[in-house]
Amino acid sequence: MQNFVFHNPTKIIFGRDTVPNIGPETAELGRRCLLVYGRSSIRKTGLYDQVTTSLADAEVEIIDHGGVQSNPLLDHVRAGIAKVKEHSIDVVVAVGGGSVLDSAKAIAAGSVVNHDVWKFFTGKKSVKSTLPVTTVLTLAAAGSEMNSGMVITNNETKEKFGFGHRLLYPKTSILDPKVTFTVPPDYTAFGAIDAIAHVLEFYMTTRDPDTPVQDCLMEGLIKNSINACERCLKDPLDYEGRASLLWTATLALNGLTAAGLGRVGFPMHMIEHSLSALYNVPHGAGLSVVIPGWLTWYRKHNEARIAQLGRRIFPPADLQPYTDGRIAERTIIIFKNWFSRIDSPVSLEELGIPAADIPMIAENSLALARVWRLTDYSQETIEEILHLCR
Amino acid sequence: MQNFVFHNPTKIIFGRDTVPNIGPETAELGRRCLLVYGRSSIRKTGLYDQVTTSLADAEVEIIDHGGVQSNPLLDHVRAGIAKVKEHSIDVVVAVGGGSVLDSAKAIAAGSVVNHDVWKFFTGKKSVKSTLPVTTVLTLAAAGSEMNSGMVITNNETKEKFGFGHRLLYPKTSILDPKVTFTVPPDYTAFGAIDAIAHVLEFYMTTRDPDTPVQDCLMEGLIKNSINACERCLKDPLDYEGRASLLWTATLALNGLTAAGLGRVGFPMHMIEHSLSALYNVPHGAGLSVVIPGWLTWYRKHNEARIAQLGRRIFPPADLQPYTDGRIAERTIIIFKNWFSRIDSPVSLEELGIPAADIPMIAENSLALARVWRLTDYSQETIEEILHLCR
Repeated sequence: MQNFVFHNPTKIIFGRDTVPNIGPETAELGRRCLLVYGRSSIRKTGLYDQVTTSLADAEVEIIDHGGVQSNPLLDHVRAGIAKVKEHSIDVVVAVGGGSVLDSAKAIAAGSVVNHDVWKFFTGKKSVKSTLPVTTVLTLAAAGSEMNSGMVITNNETKEKFGFGHRLLYPKTSILDPKVTFTVPPDYTAFGAIDAIAHVLEFYMTTRDPDTPVQDCLMEGLIKNSINACERCLKDPLDYEGRASLLWTATLALNGLTAAGLGRVGFPMHMIEHSLSALYNVPHGAGLSVVIPGWLTWYRKHNEARIAQLGRRIFPPADLQPYTDGRIAERTIIIFKNWFSRIDSPVSLEELGIPAADIPMIAENSLALARVWRLTDYSQETIEEILHLCR
Repeated sequence: MQNFVFHNPTKIIFGRDTVPNIGPETAELGRRCLLVYGRSSIRKTGLYDQVTTSLADAEVEIIDHGGVQSNPLLDHVRAGIAKVKEHSIDVVVAVGGGSVLDSAKAIAAGSVVNHDVWKFFTGKKSVKSTLPVTTVLTLAAAGSEMNSGMVITNNETKEKFGFGHRLLYPKTSILDPKVTFTVPPDYTAFGAIDAIAHVLEFYMTTRDPDTPVQDCLMEGLIKNSINACERCLKDPLDYEGRASLLWTATLALNGLTAAGLGRVGFPMHMIEHSLSALYNVPHGAGLSVVIPGWLTWYRKHNEARIAQLGRRIFPPADLQPYTDGRIAERTIIIFKNWFSRIDSPVSLEELGIPAADIPMIAENSLALARVWRLTDYSQETIEEILHLCR
């Protein structure tokens, strides 16, 4: 186990009918909030009314900032920052999925500085302070509700970059599984795949061979993502299935899985971010294409690790002592088949991305590889992986 | 899954050579500390010097308060409170195992009120504020380093009572596995048993039948406690074994396992506390007697739950579809045999406690059952369980 600091101060309020906590929780942090959300769906479900009523009851003034897109855009973040400055806002409230929460964090960081917020993402400036953020989560996926990270797309430069800072943990996040009842099957699946990817990235890229505590946790989270997703797809109103998926996705990227693993990478996300940035594909859909391809490439480097995961979470029924190679191959096929079964794409072709674009995609990924210091990934390597995603 | 609030603000600094962080971390909270520790062992190992040097370097003044016993005593807590008040101390630093950390927390709570600190434990007063606490942990066991609980023994009334409050999370806890190299085999085993008991209590007493995320986490922690303990007993200087045991014990009682389980009990601890209070047996030794007895009694009430645990963490090699009854019985035997194998007692007799004392022990436990509202436990029930511990 490697040295680590674990310090996650986010307060999670989880369960049925917990949304009305947003008012009191936010009122402890400020009197005037920027309310960040996405499209019209939260108006249709009544969530918008619930949140604004709770905020009003707690005497928190609301400045509205809807319209966050999936793969959230830098321009919209900049517009939010302008509103914060104009209205002397002291707290940011996010109601939505990862895109909304990430936008809220970026606004919270960008509102207290005079330079452009993108400089945080390119590593040219570092965060010194932020506005506080509270959230009501509507999608089990990104983990942003209990971590300090965020991902924003710069639509001018076609860069989808992520970064994190310890000041960007939400103060309070409210997770009501019932709020996720209306998530359609495709986004339910994409969310589960995102959670699986978060765990897989760390599980696979750690170079520490002796992390049994973390391994158990991560294996359990992958199993639970799969099982809970299947329950939600079978019955979108299965409260317990929604609850399991929601809490699993949160734990999948709240810092606990990575604590003790040492330096880990996010190479599958690195490549997927290019697919999202260039073709605006849903993040989870991009990941279900990249994961099998990346694992197939990674098999050459660490077959044993893929085999360990497979033996533990997909044990062969006959318990035969198969070779690592055979188990690793089987594990990749099981993931790929499962992604297909839940109607998520598993090839670039299914995303409508031609093989001829691969060099251009790889070039885009390479920019993020440099920012994230993923030095193992050259243009050639990324192209090789992308060919395995065809 | 039941509704829950999870909010654990403790900062964990984990790993090799992390002890010198105690000075800077403490200096952020105050300028004058009460240094709470146990017996002479931390002087012999050099840890005392390391800690006091770090505090001095950070310009934190030290008032010494050594002498905490295992099963820590209320009198010693009261003496610490007197010192805090006399010297205008603003932060409490604990260097030791659970007993030391619990004493420090009790001092931190009792120093800011004018009534006796024991009133918190009997439920007659509630905590409104506390001094901040920082810790350097020397034993993988209690989990006190990352939770808000504490257990203190009142030597006059022979009551070993525990309670917790959200203000009592340590601000920072420093966990260096190397510090635990000198823990002798018996206390290494007792610590692992304590961690297992913490997980078992919640795993067994939840009434929620649908908690797959928590189940996976808890099953992994029990397996890791066993595996890591065996490594430490085989080679006390096995850094990775010590690290696994230390982090496992912390995660076993930091609130994460219980989040979502609804109301859970601590019945095995309830009974063990009487053994410690009346006979001053080490907590882990008392638990290894109580666990098999309590599980044997509990089998009548929820055989399926014991069987689920057994099937997952001790799967029969032949994978036959044995009945729940058979698997549950086998699981209890495996625990009991393992406790024996690591030289921890598994009967009251081995602790030197005569069967004739059982009514008196049960009466003592009943007092705690009332405070903890374990209403299922009558005098007769506790006696029945204790007879199964013979």
